[in-house]
Amino acid sequence: MTRRTGRRPGNPDTREVILVAARAAFAERGFDAASIRAIAAAAEVDPALVHHYFGSKDQLFLAAMNSPVDPGDLIPRIVAGPRDGLGERLVRLFLGVWDSPAGAAGVALLRSSVTHDWSARLLREFLITQVLRRVLDHLDVDPAELPMRGSLVASQMIGLAMMRYVIKLEPVASAAPETLVAAIGPTVQRYLTGPLDG
Amino acid sequence: MTRRTGRRPGNPDTREVILVAARAAFAERGFDAASIRAIAAAAEVDPALVHHYFGSKDQLFLAAMNSPVDPGDLIPRIVAGPRDGLGERLVRLFLGVWDSPAGAAGVALLRSSVTHDWSARLLREFLITQVLRRVLDHLDVDPAELPMRGSLVASQMIGLAMMRYVIKLEPVASAAPETLVAAIGPTVQRYLTGPLDG
Repeated sequence: MTRRTGRRPGNPDTREVILVAARAAFAERGFDAASIRAIAAAAEVDPALVHHYFGSKDQLFLAAMNSPVDPGDLIPRIVAGPRDGLGERLVRLFLGVWDSPAGAAGVALLRSSVTHDWSARLLREFLITQVLRRVLDHLDVDPAELPMRGSLVASQMIGLAMMRYVIKLEPVASAAPETLVAAIGPTVQRYLTGPLDG
Repeated sequence: MTRRTGRRPGNPDTREVILVAARAAFAERGFDAASIRAIAAAAEVDPALVHHYFGSKDQLFLAAMNSPVDPGDLIPRIVAGPRDGLGERLVRLFLGVWDSPAGAAGVALLRSSVTHDWSARLLREFLITQVLRRVLDHLDVDPAELPMRGSLVASQMIGLAMMRYVIKLEPVASAAPETLVAAIGPTVQRYLTGPLDG
């Protein structure tokens, strides 16, 4: 095959070329700073084609991450309930996704993030922009504390995923979801809304 | 080089041959079931030579894991203090080790455990036999709950390591250790001694 130059038409690999450019942009600049215009330029396509294939920047990011679910669909539902049970609802949602066939993509993402720095950066951006922001924006706590609260929640959730799906330490590996919801929910609740200074 | 048969003398690579056999045995059979005698047989050396090089089975395991520290030295010191601050002391000890040059070995272990199943099995055995048992044996809680308590503690600690050293999510990644001790210590304390049913 000869190397093409200039803007690509809608050939079969255009989608993958856009995703490669998107992964590089999101990892290097972060989600907020990366623009669809710049990603389109790097992929040598028209920005309208990026929108045509992927829709919004959020949706492009989810496709670039191979995310089998859209946290933007799932999280608003559980944030809408009473504040007190938010920690438990988050753990229940998390286990529901990871215990499903979608969990394989999560494990692949964890694997990739510990072996490639750029993949760790993508996972970080994913956690912040697609998951944590959607939870934290609804809390009536000191805004200055939100980043710490979010990263503490992430530490418990990613640790749960590591133990249940990767390292497979029993009994966490095969416990009934509601057992883990009851045990870990209060931790997440305190990280979200409780005191953090001991 | 010709393939040697029979028992190996104390040549320079004997130590490494023993470690390879030990890793295989600990991963396949688990720490408790793997014997120095069987490891020596697999390495084609005399069991006395294994003891000579490595000392106890615990010490052989630490060498096989490339562990830069011996939890058997560190954990009894913090378990000896008052029960109430145990969670905080565990988080402080954990951060002290991982923030030191020894932390690089921990990150290498995490990396290996998510990409190789046998390495995940080794990490699981390490957590159970070298770390968790030494903490849990001193708690006056229902013995039937100890495995769940231990794996919950592990989920929070490994998640902390993932966020601080691998995924590097701020502000957990660069927070002062005592900030994390205050925030995460109560979680570990509840997993060790508190109610687990919400």
